[in-house]
Amino acid sequence: MNLLLLHPEDRLDDTRWQISGRRAEHLRRVRALLPGEQVPAGECGGLLGPATLLEDDGDSMQFDFRGTHPAPAPLPLTLVLALPRPKMLKRILIDATSLGIKRIVLLNSHKVEKSFWKTPELKQSLLHEKMLLGLEQAGDTLMPELLLRQRFRPFVEDELPALSEQTQRLLAHPGDYSPLPSGLSTPVTLAVGPEGGWTGYEVAMLQQCGFTCHSLGQRILRVETAVPALTAHIMQLP
Amino acid sequence: MNLLLLHPEDRLDDTRWQISGRRAEHLRRVRALLPGEQVPAGECGGLLGPATLLEDDGDSMQFDFRGTHPAPAPLPLTLVLALPRPKMLKRILIDATSLGIKRIVLLNSHKVEKSFWKTPELKQSLLHEKMLLGLEQAGDTLMPELLLRQRFRPFVEDELPALSEQTQRLLAHPGDYSPLPSGLSTPVTLAVGPEGGWTGYEVAMLQQCGFTCHSLGQRILRVETAVPALTAHIMQLP
Repeated sequence: MNLLLLHPEDRLDDTRWQISGRRAEHLRRVRALLPGEQVPAGECGGLLGPATLLEDDGDSMQFDFRGTHPAPAPLPLTLVLALPRPKMLKRILIDATSLGIKRIVLLNSHKVEKSFWKTPELKQSLLHEKMLLGLEQAGDTLMPELLLRQRFRPFVEDELPALSEQTQRLLAHPGDYSPLPSGLSTPVTLAVGPEGGWTGYEVAMLQQCGFTCHSLGQRILRVETAVPALTAHIMQLP
Repeated sequence: MNLLLLHPEDRLDDTRWQISGRRAEHLRRVRALLPGEQVPAGECGGLLGPATLLEDDGDSMQFDFRGTHPAPAPLPLTLVLALPRPKMLKRILIDATSLGIKRIVLLNSHKVEKSFWKTPELKQSLLHEKMLLGLEQAGDTLMPELLLRQRFRPFVEDELPALSEQTQRLLAHPGDYSPLPSGLSTPVTLAVGPEGGWTGYEVAMLQQCGFTCHSLGQRILRVETAVPALTAHIMQLP
């Protein structure tokens, strides 16, 4: 937790904020924060600035916080990701958020096990929590938008064209394709398949939507390795 | 497991190999491999080629295998990594290996908890096993060299200069530094600090050894996110 992220419900008045639970425990236990000391903070969706601990009654902590400077610029990349297995999904959401990605689509694919869509880990509140951890890690304040799309074809035909309009549409696919572009700071939509890859039909549908296939070397990476690798290769990280 | 990796002890004669245990179970359970069918294989440290299942007695499997083509080219990057916490170390070793890194140094740093050096997970056999998983994932055959160095200063003063000779020495460090180079295919030594970063003293020592500080954007990444991100940003992945 590199940033104390403050939420609307933590606000007492203009500059006074109160937290308890996980964040407070972290600041006590790991940072040993004492009254009068400061910690980097940010208002969810807003500015960053120092927060000064005013008092700590052992349960809740009160802070003085004023946002003074903007959070890092959003990464102009939309990640369209075949739904990974639940355990991996958590990590990937933290990673993708910490990299600055602001829109994530979890999409079905032929090779996604049906059971993944029924797991309790897919509850919006749990996914939200993982993205919060990503923001706290990265020192960022703006939550990504998260879309769950359980039907591949309607999404790719009806939603994806508008969603990816005026972006460079890239499909990471193992095979003998041209290398991925790199160092971009212009908008990109990146589609990443499941373990085992998109099917031929899925690739063809994505190509029809304007996506071009590229590979990131000969080696086959796990999805959770590929997401940070692809992101940092393709984009100029702000 | 995208590759059946064969070891010297699996060899029966010139072209006949026998496996049992984890690999055989995977091929039976996940791939449902039957006699006469082929699976991508490789000889540890050697060539890739198809392996044909000759017989499976439910315990051991016998294959016909002949190497026909080389494994992907090694990535000319040496990773000098502050020893991560044991749970993360496993993942990072799989990731680093799957990315094609062929030399990994696990180094002490002021902010590495002393207990990390005493954990049973640091047994060479366990670390070796993780790197094997990375090779099987990536479809590669050449094991990385792994060095454990529990004393920072003697390593940086006495070993690192020769180890990093004729490589570009890069230090990933959060802060206001010039951006990292990208798309390199020439040799690089990359130093990645612990959670919380190298100390000022450690940065100065590495700079004296010829390392230059660079940052990968404003956001602070977890070490396990940073390793694939940095690798795929800096290097042209073969």
